[in-house]
Amino acid sequence: MENGPTPALIALDWGTSSLRAYLMDGSGRVLDRRSNAHGIQNLPIPGLPGFEQVFASICGEWLTLYPGLPVVAGGMVGSAQGWVEAPYVPCPADTSTLVSRAVAVDSPLGIRLLIAPGVIFDPPDANPDVMRGEEIQISGACADHPALSQRTCVVLPGTHCKWVQVSEGRIVRFATYMTGELFAVLSKHSILGRLMPADESSDSQACEAAFLDGVNAARKSLPGDLAHQIFATRTLGLTRRLPAEALKDYLSGLLIGHELVSGLAHMRDTLSSDAALLLVGEDALCGRYVRALEVLGVRPAAKLENTAPRGLFQFAVAAGLIPLASKATAP
Amino acid sequence: MENGPTPALIALDWGTSSLRAYLMDGSGRVLDRRSNAHGIQNLPIPGLPGFEQVFASICGEWLTLYPGLPVVAGGMVGSAQGWVEAPYVPCPADTSTLVSRAVAVDSPLGIRLLIAPGVIFDPPDANPDVMRGEEIQISGACADHPALSQRTCVVLPGTHCKWVQVSEGRIVRFATYMTGELFAVLSKHSILGRLMPADESSDSQACEAAFLDGVNAARKSLPGDLAHQIFATRTLGLTRRLPAEALKDYLSGLLIGHELVSGLAHMRDTLSSDAALLLVGEDALCGRYVRALEVLGVRPAAKLENTAPRGLFQFAVAAGLIPLASKATAP
Repeated sequence: MENGPTPALIALDWGTSSLRAYLMDGSGRVLDRRSNAHGIQNLPIPGLPGFEQVFASICGEWLTLYPGLPVVAGGMVGSAQGWVEAPYVPCPADTSTLVSRAVAVDSPLGIRLLIAPGVIFDPPDANPDVMRGEEIQISGACADHPALSQRTCVVLPGTHCKWVQVSEGRIVRFATYMTGELFAVLSKHSILGRLMPADESSDSQACEAAFLDGVNAARKSLPGDLAHQIFATRTLGLTRRLPAEALKDYLSGLLIGHELVSGLAHMRDTLSSDAALLLVGEDALCGRYVRALEVLGVRPAAKLENTAPRGLFQFAVAAGLIPLASKATAP
Repeated sequence: MENGPTPALIALDWGTSSLRAYLMDGSGRVLDRRSNAHGIQNLPIPGLPGFEQVFASICGEWLTLYPGLPVVAGGMVGSAQGWVEAPYVPCPADTSTLVSRAVAVDSPLGIRLLIAPGVIFDPPDANPDVMRGEEIQISGACADHPALSQRTCVVLPGTHCKWVQVSEGRIVRFATYMTGELFAVLSKHSILGRLMPADESSDSQACEAAFLDGVNAARKSLPGDLAHQIFATRTLGLTRRLPAEALKDYLSGLLIGHELVSGLAHMRDTLSSDAALLLVGEDALCGRYVRALEVLGVRPAAKLENTAPRGLFQFAVAAGLIPLASKATAP
């Protein structure tokens, strides 16, 4: 990289089950990337020494080559079980709010990390909700798509899917849906998984039809129906109305469908204006959401993958860690 | 028992995780009982020899004392993974229907067992649903409470709760709710269990209040809300709005509440007449259902515990296995 762009930032997306590190230039371009499975629940040794060791191992070489680079981090690394706790900031919150409540921690390499806080939505008339990591992805999505950030419903599918109302770059309110975790625990630990084959081949027409059947069943559901409807994943297998390899697609469609029915209803005020629906997350999973939304007559404005590096860069810029001069060196 | 009532039947309630055996007289009274953990998924040796060995071990002594006693069995022992498969009979089904499709199997003790089939509800406009074991409990409930059996919604709380419309002793239609299994997998295998204490002390006022909070949250739910609402089990703990020991009660109230909202809506036609709502099952769990139903303004007509022995007796009577003469010997 001798004659290439100058590194200006190390950004860490440090979640529960994985750590992704990015070396970025002053314009937010990713120059190099590394990752490992040392999420905060999977450190080689527990507690503070574990965080320090994993950090040194993933970033040590970069910091030797480019001493003094600023380092920022987001995700579960700032939780109560993380390296240092960065307590939740309340809604409304934008990138500047995150910076104002960020928490610094000194690493053994002599480098200070700036860790972004999570966000809490705590309305007087409902239960509180929390996010940690998604606020960074939203910062990235807003930066990459400034037109969308005016008035958007951002949906981030995953283990704990977030439905987030964003207005002028600020997180106004949000709701978590445990759709991904429900799918995982029901497939792995409940009777519904017994008839499902172990292998992952799920690209046949029968699987796609089963997925859409699940979405349509969700569309017709009444309040409270889910615990009944999921049992069809078993009975449709028992009666051989669905092939075994399509059962998990039926369950997936049912669970995603339920989430969409609820999420769209609760975001109706936002979406009935000209606000956009933006999907952010892993491409194949977002594709499932696109197909399920189509059944419900909704077309998302865009589908974005991994906006965390860009969000961490925005966080570093807002924290004054990126010298303006270095932006000029970007091609 | 030399001068006591004469044994007339051995009845086996043989489920997934346990086996309960009853020695009964000719009036259906239980004279002796035995049980062990050798449910069909927990046999000491797999397959046919396992069933034979467990049967001989639990009933051998009775059959030595009273040779030639008829033996009946119900529950998962008649499933595809059971001793012998007794295929599902369609709705409407009563005790006579079960007898007409019962399957006999010869045991190594020279005794023939009569195994009751399960029931399938397979309407043209909805997914199929199945039960196996509950049909026997319903036979017992109808026999013990003939007035209720005219027109009843029988609710059998448990791992897979059944809502059953019974008319003149016949199962007309039913729906399964995976409420108990959802509670178990979410508590044991999801993030929601992380903040829950390991011990089982749950009798404080705070726990009861949390349970009712959960029911009330369910009462206000819109379609698809469950995957969002369960996340409050975590956020109410994180924000210390609920004590850790009350979190599982909140989840329990939410899941039972969702089931009740759905079950009552689907059984509205039945319950809007003068039909009774009957709870059958384990006493503490049925108590939770009674308290949750009260929040929804519904009062069950009765709460019955373990009607399986009586149901197996009715099954044996309908099969002609109980000589009429022996009835006269009952006190």
